[in-house]
Amino acid sequence: MSSYHAYAAFEARGALKPFEYDPGLLGRDEVEIKVQSCGLCHSDLSMLDNEWQMSRYPMVPGHEVIGTVHALGEDVTQLAVGQTVGLGWYSGSCMVCHQCMSGDHNLCARVEGTILGRFGGFADTVRCKRAWAIPLPAGVDPAKAGPLFCGGVTVFNPIIQCGVRPTERVGVIGIGGLGHLAIRFLHAWGCAVTAFSSSADKETEARALGAQHFVNSRDAAALGRIAGSLDFILSTVNASLDWGAYLNTLAPRGRLHLVGAVPEPIAFGIFPVLVGQKSISASPLGSPATMATMLEFCARHAIEPVTELYPASKINDALERLRSGKARYRVVVDMNA
Amino acid sequence: MSSYHAYAAFEARGALKPFEYDPGLLGRDEVEIKVQSCGLCHSDLSMLDNEWQMSRYPMVPGHEVIGTVHALGEDVTQLAVGQTVGLGWYSGSCMVCHQCMSGDHNLCARVEGTILGRFGGFADTVRCKRAWAIPLPAGVDPAKAGPLFCGGVTVFNPIIQCGVRPTERVGVIGIGGLGHLAIRFLHAWGCAVTAFSSSADKETEARALGAQHFVNSRDAAALGRIAGSLDFILSTVNASLDWGAYLNTLAPRGRLHLVGAVPEPIAFGIFPVLVGQKSISASPLGSPATMATMLEFCARHAIEPVTELYPASKINDALERLRSGKARYRVVVDMNA
Repeated sequence: MSSYHAYAAFEARGALKPFEYDPGLLGRDEVEIKVQSCGLCHSDLSMLDNEWQMSRYPMVPGHEVIGTVHALGEDVTQLAVGQTVGLGWYSGSCMVCHQCMSGDHNLCARVEGTILGRFGGFADTVRCKRAWAIPLPAGVDPAKAGPLFCGGVTVFNPIIQCGVRPTERVGVIGIGGLGHLAIRFLHAWGCAVTAFSSSADKETEARALGAQHFVNSRDAAALGRIAGSLDFILSTVNASLDWGAYLNTLAPRGRLHLVGAVPEPIAFGIFPVLVGQKSISASPLGSPATMATMLEFCARHAIEPVTELYPASKINDALERLRSGKARYRVVVDMNA
Repeated sequence: MSSYHAYAAFEARGALKPFEYDPGLLGRDEVEIKVQSCGLCHSDLSMLDNEWQMSRYPMVPGHEVIGTVHALGEDVTQLAVGQTVGLGWYSGSCMVCHQCMSGDHNLCARVEGTILGRFGGFADTVRCKRAWAIPLPAGVDPAKAGPLFCGGVTVFNPIIQCGVRPTERVGVIGIGGLGHLAIRFLHAWGCAVTAFSSSADKETEARALGAQHFVNSRDAAALGRIAGSLDFILSTVNASLDWGAYLNTLAPRGRLHLVGAVPEPIAFGIFPVLVGQKSISASPLGSPATMATMLEFCARHAIEPVTELYPASKINDALERLRSGKARYRVVVDMNA
């Protein structure tokens, strides 16, 4: 039995070091993926730092995997050895519960994480259950596609789930790993996009990504000036914001949708929400079918993440780059370099 | 010019006394209604008590009016003198904004209240704009229909707006003026209804109204036992509840919808909402078209409010009865008795 060669942290906030482990027999419904590249996500940092009090060490982060199918369990019929696939935050689900049977595999109560209770994608090889290895269509560049599988689907899925229509005026809060993709998706969707950022110097970048309007989110008066104008706002940040101020920018029937793991409780006064029939919602990642739909949409509209590439030999530099908040916008590690 | 004879409060928390006023000329788009009966709503009490700091005195409460058309402005072509109509919380809207033009007249920024800035329905006569006098269809008992026009549409409208389906398992929080109608509507809609109440003695009544399940909302363990089971919860109460506990009873994709004017901020932790793709929303009353749809549904399913009838001569007793919290479930005042 051959070992997998990975990079692991051996304690909270520890540096990544080479780590070898025996993955055991390949399950009947499992896929073995030779990793080409893997994106680095803020949730890798949260898990490395044990921010959510559920980390175990050694930990192999990495859940924005692009690779080629190397081996298939005997029940896996829809994939072929050598095929390029992607793997994101989730690597398995029960396949038989009401959510899985309804196509909402990402809402399965027994959904399995790629770096939670198993070893992730910063490795030469990684595994997942068959439903979660998503074929990369022609027209999507494998060298940049990794971040679509976590950051990308996290912001693409709400557009589907919330039924956003091309006629709508939408907002994106935060222009980072998730937000920059949200702007690209919503621009291609046909919407008028307003980008909200606390960094005034991101205006030019936001417009280049497809935003028609830019609002400095530290400027309360600027938020006040667009009161009642937006149909949908996607918040991609992890911070606690003045939610009332954003709800105030929504038109009647408007929706504020959150995908960031905001640490403090969300709080808002009922009156403006009630009078305007507004709503607040949230969602996690996306289903395998939604990931496939996203990839086709990316190929059609030439949407790809803006990435910074690091060789595997500099994986700790890549981590530091992400921590610095300076990455534009997503760090990807080439596992063959 | 003839005067209208009404019952008004002359100060906050003051008793209702006879009050006469000159309504001026009937507008081209206005309807003059001879009041037969008028329901008494908690928001009448809130306005009488100046709870929302926007009351003006003398104030004539009453916004669940049933009456007959007595006179029509020259532009009003869809109604006939003598016809029985109802009038609710709203009595006018601009008719030309995006919301009015989309059928969402109740979301119009210039929507006009029946007891706010004008004199309400505890009177022999009241007025409204033509769109807001809704004809009562055959099969709806005028003597009991008043409460449908505020309490009723407040809970019927969310069923439409939220796209509740008959296959769903739903919850209703609070079994009072609004909640008892919500249970009847959702039962007739085909849903499995769970009634939540802090009054354990309401279980028998809740089941008689159409609830299949009853949960004592003071029993945290009982709420815990139905975790993840409901698709939709309609909260009809004005109190601040443990919203997290109710969000926990929702299934994935579930929605908690509020129609009560909860005084404190709504607060909840993001994680369960995000992981389960849940949402929280709210709405005010309903549009004229939705009121007409509700009335047809009431006629079809023999749905009517449970009422206690008071003569106009005992209108202050009626107010006290509502304040006592003992009314089952809606107090209606017969303006001809």
